[in-house]
Amino acid sequence: MATGTLPLVVSRYKVPLTLFILIYTDILHCQQFIIPFKAPSNCSVDEFFDISSLSCVSCGPNQRRSTTGLSCICKTGYQTVITDKASITCQQCPTDKPAVTKGGFGCIRCPGSLSDEGECKCPQGNILVERDVNGNLLDEARCETCNGNAPALSVPNSSGARYVSIQYNTLIHPVFSNLTACQALGNMCVMNMHSFSGVSTDACGLFNTIFRSKAALMDSKHFGYSFNRRGNLPWLYYGDEPGLASRVLQTDPVPIGFSFRGRNKLLAAVYNVRGEFLRWESVGGGNLQLCPETTNKLAAAFSFGTAYKQSVSVSSLCVSLSLSLSLSPLFYDVFMDLGGGENRKLLPLPTLVYNQQYNGRFINQESMKNWYLSRRMFLVDTLSGREKSTSRPKVIRVASSVKIRFQLVPRTQEGKVFPPLMIVTYRDIPISDSNSKTVSTTFAVEYEMDQNEARMKTDTALGVMGGVAVLYSLLKTVSWKRRIASPLIDAETMLKFMLFYAGDLANVFFTVTVGTGLYWLIFYKAQQFVSVLLPLPAQEEQFVTYIGCAFALKAVQFLHKLILQVSVDIFFIDWERPRSKTSRTVQGFSIFSLSLYFAPSPVSIWRTYFVANEWNEIQTIRKISPTFQIMAVLFFLEVLGFSNLALRDPWPTLERLSQAYTPSHSLILRYGVAATLWLCIGLLQMIYFTVFHEHFVEDKIRQFVDLCSISNISMLLLSHRCFGYYIHGRSVHGHADTNMEEMNNNMKRESESLCGQRGLLPNTDTQTFQVSLTNRLRSQYDRIREPISRRSGPSRLIDAGSANQFEQNSRGYHTMNHFLGSIIDHAHPDMDYIVKDKLMFERVVGMEFLEPSEKSIFYNDEAHSFSDVLFYGNEATLLIFDTLFFCVVDLGSQSFVLAAVLTYVQQMIFRLIRNTFGRKNLVNKTLVDERFLI
Amino acid sequence: MATGTLPLVVSRYKVPLTLFILIYTDILHCQQFIIPFKAPSNCSVDEFFDISSLSCVSCGPNQRRSTTGLSCICKTGYQTVITDKASITCQQCPTDKPAVTKGGFGCIRCPGSLSDEGECKCPQGNILVERDVNGNLLDEARCETCNGNAPALSVPNSSGARYVSIQYNTLIHPVFSNLTACQALGNMCVMNMHSFSGVSTDACGLFNTIFRSKAALMDSKHFGYSFNRRGNLPWLYYGDEPGLASRVLQTDPVPIGFSFRGRNKLLAAVYNVRGEFLRWESVGGGNLQLCPETTNKLAAAFSFGTAYKQSVSVSSLCVSLSLSLSLSPLFYDVFMDLGGGENRKLLPLPTLVYNQQYNGRFINQESMKNWYLSRRMFLVDTLSGREKSTSRPKVIRVASSVKIRFQLVPRTQEGKVFPPLMIVTYRDIPISDSNSKTVSTTFAVEYEMDQNEARMKTDTALGVMGGVAVLYSLLKTVSWKRRIASPLIDAETMLKFMLFYAGDLANVFFTVTVGTGLYWLIFYKAQQFVSVLLPLPAQEEQFVTYIGCAFALKAVQFLHKLILQVSVDIFFIDWERPRSKTSRTVQGFSIFSLSLYFAPSPVSIWRTYFVANEWNEIQTIRKISPTFQIMAVLFFLEVLGFSNLALRDPWPTLERLSQAYTPSHSLILRYGVAATLWLCIGLLQMIYFTVFHEHFVEDKIRQFVDLCSISNISMLLLSHRCFGYYIHGRSVHGHADTNMEEMNNNMKRESESLCGQRGLLPNTDTQTFQVSLTNRLRSQYDRIREPISRRSGPSRLIDAGSANQFEQNSRGYHTMNHFLGSIIDHAHPDMDYIVKDKLMFERVVGMEFLEPSEKSIFYNDEAHSFSDVLFYGNEATLLIFDTLFFCVVDLGSQSFVLAAVLTYVQQMIFRLIRNTFGRKNLVNKTLVDERFLI
Repeated sequence: MATGTLPLVVSRYKVPLTLFILIYTDILHCQQFIIPFKAPSNCSVDEFFDISSLSCVSCGPNQRRSTTGLSCICKTGYQTVITDKASITCQQCPTDKPAVTKGGFGCIRCPGSLSDEGECKCPQGNILVERDVNGNLLDEARCETCNGNAPALSVPNSSGARYVSIQYNTLIHPVFSNLTACQALGNMCVMNMHSFSGVSTDACGLFNTIFRSKAALMDSKHFGYSFNRRGNLPWLYYGDEPGLASRVLQTDPVPIGFSFRGRNKLLAAVYNVRGEFLRWESVGGGNLQLCPETTNKLAAAFSFGTAYKQSVSVSSLCVSLSLSLSLSPLFYDVFMDLGGGENRKLLPLPTLVYNQQYNGRFINQESMKNWYLSRRMFLVDTLSGREKSTSRPKVIRVASSVKIRFQLVPRTQEGKVFPPLMIVTYRDIPISDSNSKTVSTTFAVEYEMDQNEARMKTDTALGVMGGVAVLYSLLKTVSWKRRIASPLIDAETMLKFMLFYAGDLANVFFTVTVGTGLYWLIFYKAQQFVSVLLPLPAQEEQFVTYIGCAFALKAVQFLHKLILQVSVDIFFIDWERPRSKTSRTVQGFSIFSLSLYFAPSPVSIWRTYFVANEWNEIQTIRKISPTFQIMAVLFFLEVLGFSNLALRDPWPTLERLSQAYTPSHSLILRYGVAATLWLCIGLLQMIYFTVFHEHFVEDKIRQFVDLCSISNISMLLLSHRCFGYYIHGRSVHGHADTNMEEMNNNMKRESESLCGQRGLLPNTDTQTFQVSLTNRLRSQYDRIREPISRRSGPSRLIDAGSANQFEQNSRGYHTMNHFLGSIIDHAHPDMDYIVKDKLMFERVVGMEFLEPSEKSIFYNDEAHSFSDVLFYGNEATLLIFDTLFFCVVDLGSQSFVLAAVLTYVQQMIFRLIRNTFGRKNLVNKTLVDERFLI
Repeated sequence: MATGTLPLVVSRYKVPLTLFILIYTDILHCQQFIIPFKAPSNCSVDEFFDISSLSCVSCGPNQRRSTTGLSCICKTGYQTVITDKASITCQQCPTDKPAVTKGGFGCIRCPGSLSDEGECKCPQGNILVERDVNGNLLDEARCETCNGNAPALSVPNSSGARYVSIQYNTLIHPVFSNLTACQALGNMCVMNMHSFSGVSTDACGLFNTIFRSKAALMDSKHFGYSFNRRGNLPWLYYGDEPGLASRVLQTDPVPIGFSFRGRNKLLAAVYNVRGEFLRWESVGGGNLQLCPETTNKLAAAFSFGTAYKQSVSVSSLCVSLSLSLSLSPLFYDVFMDLGGGENRKLLPLPTLVYNQQYNGRFINQESMKNWYLSRRMFLVDTLSGREKSTSRPKVIRVASSVKIRFQLVPRTQEGKVFPPLMIVTYRDIPISDSNSKTVSTTFAVEYEMDQNEARMKTDTALGVMGGVAVLYSLLKTVSWKRRIASPLIDAETMLKFMLFYAGDLANVFFTVTVGTGLYWLIFYKAQQFVSVLLPLPAQEEQFVTYIGCAFALKAVQFLHKLILQVSVDIFFIDWERPRSKTSRTVQGFSIFSLSLYFAPSPVSIWRTYFVANEWNEIQTIRKISPTFQIMAVLFFLEVLGFSNLALRDPWPTLERLSQAYTPSHSLILRYGVAATLWLCIGLLQMIYFTVFHEHFVEDKIRQFVDLCSISNISMLLLSHRCFGYYIHGRSVHGHADTNMEEMNNNMKRESESLCGQRGLLPNTDTQTFQVSLTNRLRSQYDRIREPISRRSGPSRLIDAGSANQFEQNSRGYHTMNHFLGSIIDHAHPDMDYIVKDKLMFERVVGMEFLEPSEKSIFYNDEAHSFSDVLFYGNEATLLIFDTLFFCVVDLGSQSFVLAAVLTYVQQMIFRLIRNTFGRKNLVNKTLVDERFLI
């Protein structure tokens, strides 16, 4: 507001003096203007209801309230004397003319008695004649008999004299009309959308000129609370000080607290276009909405905390329906009802007219410091668009958008809000004859709070946790370096670090976003007194970005793990030796001589097939049932109605009436509900599966370890170059490649504890180990593997080499089998190993402190951590990935069903990928034919 | 309608004569009353718009149309002469008094010139005085100068004379008011809800009395189309003949055809309470609904074919809003617009006032033959409830339910409907001061057609197909009897028949219901001209019952199959023989002497374990992916919006605007959409899996057969006592129990066709057979099995027997293995078998014609029909069961998501049951330890 020449235009209150002091001295403190609620019926007999201050004001001497209560008239027996154009005094009638004429402007003698109102009374069938044909007042009134052709009140007789008095009655109106004339001028200004320029030719300019002159008079301390007071101008403008808007809107909170149980009551003083006060109306019955919805839905607009937005296409037909309602447009001064029983207080709502112009500039579309706040609005203006008073309007102006914005006081605990702002946008609609034309009108109620603090907290949490994640990722990188036995820091190391960091950062983002979602869910939906309000859709963008980051990073981690899993080194060590070799020398025969004649029956490969087949099958089993997970989440969200928790209203209930208003969804709440549900159901499933199912029904991992033991096959799994897992499966019975009787016997003996224990070390049960290999051992391993793994190299294309390769593979397999078997049997002193327990701390940080320089180290691992190379051991990653996938799809499509379907497809695809490549890897590494992995 | 004394009360039309002839002579033929559409603007200059007949009627001689067009006035220069109370004639003014006075009732001489209207004209600033102070007409008019204090038209001068002429103007009204007085009487009758009794004291009684007298006059051929015609009574009643209602409503169709693309346009002639015609209104903008919805939703009510129902709770506040709209209640005569360009025709809608009383009886709540059809309705009556004309009404009467019912002409191809019936229910609401009171008002549009024909067709189809099903079930029973080789017809046979019949009947019900659903879906949603309309919710009950039957019967069939599947006889025949036995004698050594010293290395059981494990795994695989099925159906229904096809509107589109009106769902369409989708997606999946997946990705059944062959193990499956399946798995290499090199070599040789073929017969490939066993073979089989199967008997509890049992099992297993092997090897001449092809007809009816009396018969079975004892071979049953389960849950809950979730749970449970019991059965029958079936 560059110019200071504009008059400071503020409405006047109950006592203008107070107000002016307030305006001119306290404008910088900007106290709220709160007025007590008064209706005409509240005023006493010698008070009238002053429609410009909406308060009761005393009548002058010898005056009393008129029947409407909106003005004063002279008491009985007093005639009205017009002193100047705008005020009246009352004079007692002289004793010789004790009666007051109709209209009250004269005194007269009566032919008969006086009525209660102090006028002359005529007998039934007579009419009172007070004036002659020329309209001059008689000294004494006459009672004349009616002609009798028609009832006296409806059909006049030959003399039309009585109409004169009626005419004279209208003479009184100009006197009183000063009160409403100012209102009418104000209304004209309102219909012009409060716009004005420096040149005072239009309604608003005139209004300001008058206001300025009155303000000058006020300044000269010429206050008198006479009937013709200067406070008759309606309150249209708040003032033109720079920054006044933000001070009005963001300094002092409304002095009451709001709860979600309560309602925000709005009241409106309704005026017609002539400036007459009509009534107090409670806002909410659709009076601020054109062609409204059903009552139920309307009510939602005024339930505190429910974001309400109703855009309707209103046909001109409907508008013309409204026309007939408000043939003279209605004007509303909107107040908030602060309650308070008998001393009900009202807070005027500042209004921002979006189309308001000042010197041709749309100042209210600029930043807040330029805003001109105002008062008073209308819904439909059918007057301005007429060329003649009787014609149809060519154009009508409607309030196409009415938005009430509540802003919560920061850090309030009691639901304090700043004065709500009403933003009105008008639109001109040309009226054509076709009724088909539609206009979109919007009515919205928004609730917002300053989200900077919440955002800062989020960012702080992200920063701190992101820092910790760096450390953790470094630790992982170091651990990885040790496990691949490479001390160099090269590009691969950096890449690995980035990959680890991606996973950890994803967890950080996930934690923060779920935490935020849960925070809003709990604090927004459960608060009694309002202390937080949801971020508006525009404020949710950052949050959505965070979720996107979490998902992208998690996807990187997941793919990384997937690639690692389908490239592990696996070898099945078959402990079975041909029977003939192990047969003892019987009765002096040398079996070695016989072995020349009897080829020892070969060791059957079927046990290896069986074990490999099982391994192939458990690659993608998980700790939860992923499909059940999807179904359960869908059931909770869509059938039990948990999705209703994500609506932008403060009700923590799952069921909504179908007729009720449905506000839009909050993305944050949607994410909060979906992610929380997903995690909770996932956790419940994990608890069920680990506590109940795996103990009482089936534990696939345990079964696999048992199968190894029964089938006399060990498994070596190398996930890193020098680190991996070992499942000791040497049969306690020596042989497993046998017939049914012996198998059953063996198992029976074992169940009766008649044989040794299954552990690697004597008299132990531990079959599963994490292994840290020495470099030498790994080199030897690689050397043996080399001819086998070459088959996937380029030489594969040479067909002649195929048979050769085939033999080489077999040889390689047997060599490896023998080599690894002898390692486990401590047959290679230079590649020996020791078995020890892992330290607690080693377990926690996932890193081995001892470097296997001389001997390899086998760490006891009862927890079956070899499942880390399966889906089974990575449930957390998978669950979070699924959660994020589900939520991201949902946020994009706003459909939980689509999210569920796509999540299922995603799971199916990744399971297929994992299975296919896992099987290929198994075939490559263990030489088991693919046809047996079914 | 017992009494015939009531007057026949029918409204009058354009030419009352025609109408009366029509009414009194053609009432039995009951032709439709169609009137041309006329508005006041359509009438020519010498016609007026007769509001009781809604047509243009010529004015009398020397008359012309008034400005409103609703009456006639005298031409210029003619004075109005009142001949009797109710008609006027026009007389030319004498030449000496050529001007007509204001009001038209006298002639006068002018001081100046005449105006265009034939009245005297005074110069500007003068007023015309035609009467003296006593109201007597002057011979010559005077022009008097105004006092000039105020503008002439707004403020009177001292002489009030000019008001006289205005007063006299009102004298004309009673003359014209006869036209509207009858309307007003009619409206009073309408406000009394058309109720009357024999005693004619109320409005309707009076109306009828007047009507009767007029009718009598009419009868005496006293027709004259004078101004005061007798046809002024509005049309309120159709008549009192018994059965008139059904003749009006169900005889002649409306002469235009309806399409779903079009709209059913309704027009209403609107009258105020005084009987004045106000305007023609197009019904649809909410004028027949109290406090209506948004325009979009409203429009849906008049889109032909869309079942519309909107119940809103209207607060008294809202009603009082309507009050201000219709401070004088409005009355509507509703017509259907038949279109026709310039000669637009209208069809009056018969109205049934639900609360109408006749002599205290609510006749319109009885059966149709007692109905009294009527015309004219109102929405809100705020007049009758007032005690004084100025007071607030104590009670208001509202039309709480307005229902428009369209009935389609049977077998129409062009969308012919009978005249729609409007059913109005009024309700009295006491008005208290509290605004909180709510009233439920309903506005509904229903479309129905006679469903008897459709129902009969359905029942016929059911009957015919049910009969066929009996035959088919009989055939199945006979086949079953042969397969269990039992000729007796006993209770079990009857039970079996019932079970088979349940399945077949379920299919019949399913076919009929899906067919019906699809029929409605296609014919209702795709028709251009309307030929069918959906059954109303009440008419859907039978359909739902059929679905229930289908589901229950299908469940019986499914359970029956499930029980059969988990009780089949299975045996794995191991062809592998110990190596040492088959070693040739080398260099003169007798291996038999050596076998005493070297126990032959036992045949490994692991191949059997492998095969059994695989069999266990394929028990519940299906031809489709059931979870994908659910997800896909859900995706189509809920995400792509196929569920919108089930809405009761004629639009075959998937997307609906969120603002648009959503009609209720039709159960039939819901079922049609869901079942069709389910079947289609199921079929597509089956095609994909059989054509693509099983050929290029994985065929579990084929894999199992291959596995048998590679592992040298055959499988005998007996689903009936003497019928079953045989998979020939004898290895072409002699041995399978060998190491990796030999296995790989074997497979390589086979792939290079260097060895024999896998078939049972030499040089064939057929490995799978259906087998019909002889009774003798089966008895032998049972005899061998007997000691094994005894273990599930009561003797099991004896602990000492356990070891015994164990040995017995092993012995039994070996005996059985040897026995079955020798059978296949034709080693038992008395239990030999032959191999042959099945006849085509045998395949079709699923029954063997040859009885295996001497030799068992092995039928070649390339189609792997052994999968009949798996889920895989019963895809049709499972798919239909799933479909029905899904639909039944959905019909019960109206939620596709819940149906999907429960279907998933159902599938999970039955898969679990099938797996658990199938595995138990496998353990029992094949003696494979349960621990290997993982």
